[in-house]
Amino acid sequence: MDNMTLIAMASIVTAGLTIALGSIGPALGEGRAVATALSALAQQPDAGSTITRTLFVGLAMIESIAIYCFVVSMILIFANPFWNHVIAQPAGN
Amino acid sequence: MDNMTLIAMASIVTAGLTIALGSIGPALGEGRAVATALSALAQQPDAGSTITRTLFVGLAMIESIAIYCFVVSMILIFANPFWNHVIAQPAGN
Amino acid sequence: MDNMTLIAMASIVTAGLTIALGSIGPALGEGRAVATALSALAQQPDAGSTITRTLFVGLAMIESIAIYCFVVSMILIFANPFWNHVIAQPAGN
Amino acid sequence: MDNMTLIAMASIVTAGLTIALGSIGPALGEGRAVATALSALAQQPDAGSTITRTLFVGLAMIESIAIYCFVVSMILIFANPFWNHVIAQPAGN
Amino acid sequence: MDNMTLIAMASIVTAGLTIALGSIGPALGEGRAVATALSALAQQPDAGSTITRTLFVGLAMIESIAIYCFVVSMILIFANPFWNHVIAQPAGN
Amino acid sequence: MDNMTLIAMASIVTAGLTIALGSIGPALGEGRAVATALSALAQQPDAGSTITRTLFVGLAMIESIAIYCFVVSMILIFANPFWNHVIAQPAGN
Amino acid sequence: MDNMTLIAMASIVTAGLTIALGSIGPALGEGRAVATALSALAQQPDAGSTITRTLFVGLAMIESIAIYCFVVSMILIFANPFWNHVIAQPAGN
Amino acid sequence: MDNMTLIAMASIVTAGLTIALGSIGPALGEGRAVATALSALAQQPDAGSTITRTLFVGLAMIESIAIYCFVVSMILIFANPFWNHVIAQPAGN
Amino acid sequence: MDNMTLIAMASIVTAGLTIALGSIGPALGEGRAVATALSALAQQPDAGSTITRTLFVGLAMIESIAIYCFVVSMILIFANPFWNHVIAQPAGN
Amino acid sequence: MDNMTLIAMASIVTAGLTIALGSIGPALGEGRAVATALSALAQQPDAGSTITRTLFVGLAMIESIAIYCFVVSMILIFANPFWNHVIAQPAGN
Amino acid sequence: MDNMTLIAMASIVTAGLTIALGSIGPALGEGRAVATALSALAQQPDAGSTITRTLFVGLAMIESIAIYCFVVSMILIFANPFWNHVIAQPAGN
Amino acid sequence: MDNMTLIAMASIVTAGLTIALGSIGPALGEGRAVATALSALAQQPDAGSTITRTLFVGLAMIESIAIYCFVVSMILIFANPFWNHVIAQPAGN
Amino acid sequence: MDNMTLIAMASIVTAGLTIALGSIGPALGEGRAVATALSALAQQPDAGSTITRTLFVGLAMIESIAIYCFVVSMILIFANPFWNHVIAQPAGN
Amino acid sequence: MDNMTLIAMASIVTAGLTIALGSIGPALGEGRAVATALSALAQQPDAGSTITRTLFVGLAMIESIAIYCFVVSMILIFANPFWNHVIAQPAGN
Repeated sequence: MDNMTLIAMASIVTAGLTIALGSIGPALGEGRAVATALSALAQQPDAGSTITRTLFVGLAMIESIAIYCFVVSMILIFANPFWNHVIAQPAGN
Repeated sequence: MDNMTLIAMASIVTAGLTIALGSIGPALGEGRAVATALSALAQQPDAGSTITRTLFVGLAMIESIAIYCFVVSMILIFANPFWNHVIAQPAGN
Repeated sequence: MDNMTLIAMASIVTAGLTIALGSIGPALGEGRAVATALSALAQQPDAGSTITRTLFVGLAMIESIAIYCFVVSMILIFANPFWNHVIAQPAGN
Repeated sequence: MDNMTLIAMASIVTAGLTIALGSIGPALGEGRAVATALSALAQQPDAGSTITRTLFVGLAMIESIAIYCFVVSMILIFANPFWNHVIAQPAGN
Repeated sequence: MDNMTLIAMASIVTAGLTIALGSIGPALGEGRAVATALSALAQQPDAGSTITRTLFVGLAMIESIAIYCFVVSMILIFANPFWNHVIAQPAGN
Repeated sequence: MDNMTLIAMASIVTAGLTIALGSIGPALGEGRAVATALSALAQQPDAGSTITRTLFVGLAMIESIAIYCFVVSMILIFANPFWNHVIAQPAGN
Repeated sequence: MDNMTLIAMASIVTAGLTIALGSIGPALGEGRAVATALSALAQQPDAGSTITRTLFVGLAMIESIAIYCFVVSMILIFANPFWNHVIAQPAGN
Repeated sequence: MDNMTLIAMASIVTAGLTIALGSIGPALGEGRAVATALSALAQQPDAGSTITRTLFVGLAMIESIAIYCFVVSMILIFANPFWNHVIAQPAGN
Repeated sequence: MDNMTLIAMASIVTAGLTIALGSIGPALGEGRAVATALSALAQQPDAGSTITRTLFVGLAMIESIAIYCFVVSMILIFANPFWNHVIAQPAGN
Repeated sequence: MDNMTLIAMASIVTAGLTIALGSIGPALGEGRAVATALSALAQQPDAGSTITRTLFVGLAMIESIAIYCFVVSMILIFANPFWNHVIAQPAGN
Repeated sequence: MDNMTLIAMASIVTAGLTIALGSIGPALGEGRAVATALSALAQQPDAGSTITRTLFVGLAMIESIAIYCFVVSMILIFANPFWNHVIAQPAGN
Repeated sequence: MDNMTLIAMASIVTAGLTIALGSIGPALGEGRAVATALSALAQQPDAGSTITRTLFVGLAMIESIAIYCFVVSMILIFANPFWNHVIAQPAGN
Repeated sequence: MDNMTLIAMASIVTAGLTIALGSIGPALGEGRAVATALSALAQQPDAGSTITRTLFVGLAMIESIAIYCFVVSMILIFANPFWNHVIAQPAGN
Repeated sequence: MDNMTLIAMASIVTAGLTIALGSIGPALGEGRAVATALSALAQQPDAGSTITRTLFVGLAMIESIAIYCFVVSMILIFANPFWNHVIAQPAGN
């Protein structure tokens, strides 16, 4: 196990777990928000435009948290500064 | 255990766990959204078109989180930059 | 423990856990959706066609998440690129 | 511990855990669906045929997830490609 | 620890855990279904025949999941292909 | 630690855990079923015979799951094929 | 650590955990059943005899699951076939 | 670490955990039963004698499960057959 | 690490965990019982004597479970037969 | 690591965890009891004296469980018989 | 790692975890008590003095449990008898 | 494993887990807040402006907690003082 | 790993976990208290002054528990007696 | 692994986990408080100013707990006294 391999393994495992664990909260939160929106629409159809507008703002904020996780996951796979530093070193290190 | 094997193992295990863990949140969230949609339809059949339209937008956003996980899982199996770097090295490394 | 064995073990264990863990969320989500559909049918039998149509769309989306897991599981067993790479190497490696 | 034994152990343990863990979600989901069906029948006996038909479609979809797990478990015991590859090798490997 | 012992241990432990873990979901699911059936009978005694018929179909489907686990457990104890392969080898292996 | 001891330890631990873990689900399920039966009897005493008959059928099915676990536990203690195979071998093995 | 000691340790630990874990489910189940019985008695005192009779049948079935665990625990302490086999061997083994 | 010490440690730890874990279920179950009894008494004071009688029978059955755990715990401390066998052996073993 | 130290450590850790874990169930159970008693008193002040009498009987039974744990904890600290056996041995053992 | 240090470490860790884990149950139980008392007072102010008296008796019994844990924790720190035995031995042991 | 360091590490870790874990129960319990007090005040403002007095007594008892944890934590940091004994020994031990 | 590699691995793993675990709470909290906002809009459409203004303030505060986690994660990847210190040292250290 | 490093590591990890774990309980408890206060204000605006006064007293008590954790965390970082003792020793120890 | 590396790793991991775990409680608590505030506004729009003022005070107190965690996390990264002490030592230590 040389240094390059260890950093690669840590990056692979972390990239996967980040988006996997990070999807639980936002998905449940969005599910709840959508569910309440539908129930609110059935109760008060006249306020439909206000409800859907508020829903989309809320979904966007929750989705942003999922996107933070996705961004970190992508950075770890494709723009990992630690990996770049290691493979830029001469092989003898 | 040479480097190639370790990275392959980490990729295999992470790819599976990413989609496995990442399916829990979205599936529960979608189940809740669909359930409320059906209950809303039964309560207010006249608002059916608004409800189903909002439902599909919501399902699409929740599904997108599951797709993030699936994408990371596929990248780790078929387009893994760490794996490509390792198998491109001469065998003596 | 040579490389081939390690990759085979990781693939076997991951394939099983992926579909095992990945079945929990979709099964619960579908159970909830079906349950609400039946309760909605009992409450508003006249809207039966709308309810069952929405139910089937929703079930299809939730089932798709379970199928992602099944696909990853099958890829790991029958079309595993890491395994193919390893068994294609000459034995001396 | 030679290679054959390790792969056999991994297959045995994974086959059991796959169907064991994979039975939790579908069983709970089906239990919920059946329970709601019975409660719906008691509430609206006249819609019995629609309710039972929808119930059976829903149960089939949930059962399909349990069957995915059972199929993977059976593949790991009786049609395991990794095991077949190992026992087909000459003993000296 | 020779090969035979390791495979025997893995089979014993897995056989027990498979049916032990696999009993949780079906037992809870059936308990819920039976409970709702009784509550439905008390609410609508006239629909007793429909309720009990639907209950038995539902219990059969849930029980089938428990039986999958029991079958895998029995296969691992009495018809384990890995064990048969190992004890069929000459002792010197 | 010779082979016989390892198999004996695995059998002892598994036998105990199988019935211990396997008792949780059925006991909770039966408790729920009995509880609902009593509540149904209090609500509709006239349907007592139908309720108790359905209750006993349901309890029998749930108890059968607990009995699966007990059977596997007993097999592992008193009719364990792996143990029989080991103690039948000459001591020198 | 000779064989006898290992088997004794496994038996001691398993005997305790079997009854300890095995008491959780039945105790909660019986508590629920008794609680509902009391609440049913308060609601419908006239059906007292039917309720208490059904309660005792139900408690007996739930208690039987706890007794399975107790029996396995006692077998492991006082009638353990593996222990008997080990202490019957000559000391030199 | 000789044999005697290992068996003593296993006995001490198991004796404590058995009663500690085994107290959770019965205590919660009894708490629920007592709570419902009090609530039932407040609702139907006239049925006090039936309620308290049923309560004591139920508490006795739940307490019996806690006593199983206590008995196993005491056996492991004061009447442990494995310990007796070990300290009866000559010291040279 | 000689024998005496190991047994002392096991006794210390077990004594603490026994009463710590053993306090969770009874404390929650008593909290529930007391809470319901207060709520019952507020609902039916006239039945105060019956309620408090039943409460004290119930609390006594739940407290007895906590006392089992405390007794085992005290035995392990002050009347531990394994410890007494060890310190009674001559130092050379 | 000599004997004295090991026993000191076990005592320190156990003393802390005993009171830490042992505070969860009683604190939640007392919180529930106090909460219900306040709600009962708001509902039936006239029964205030009975309610507060019963509350204090109940709190005393729940607090006693927390005090068991505190006592064991203090014994382990300040009156630990195992520690006293060890530091009383001559240093050469 | 000499003795002093091990005891210091055990004291540091335990002191932190004791107050950290010990804060969960009391904080939730107090939150519940305060919440019910506010809700009771809104429902019956006239009983405000009785409610707040009972609340403060209850909070004091719950807070006392948190203070037990804090006291043990402080003792472990600033008045630790094991630490005092170790640093009082001559360095050569 | 030299120092640089260890610090890189710790940074990678921690950066991922920080945002992954840190997304659960805020996502669920925001989901709840949005859901209640929609339900409040359906109940009282006239207070729409007050509700959405309060919602946005609340979302901003909850989002700030998620942003704390994202900031720490970014600092660990791109502005890690420990990493900078290590790679600034001459290679011979 | 010399003594100083081990104590520093233990202090760092414990300081972080103490405030991290210690924030869960108080935050949830305060959230509950504030939520009920708002709901009480909406129900009984006239009792606003009493409600807010009681709320602030309650929040102060719950906050005090969080502050205990923060104090212990700060002590471990900036006024750690074990650390001071270690760095005050001459380097040769 | 020299001392500097170990302290750096401990600081990195702890800094991340502190804010990650510390965000769960405050985020859920704030979500609950905001949700109730919105529901209270919909129920009693006239008390809007009192409700939002109380909400902001409550949010500030809950946010303060999250800020404790953030402060500890920042201290561990940028003002860590243990790290400063280590890097101030001459390299030969």
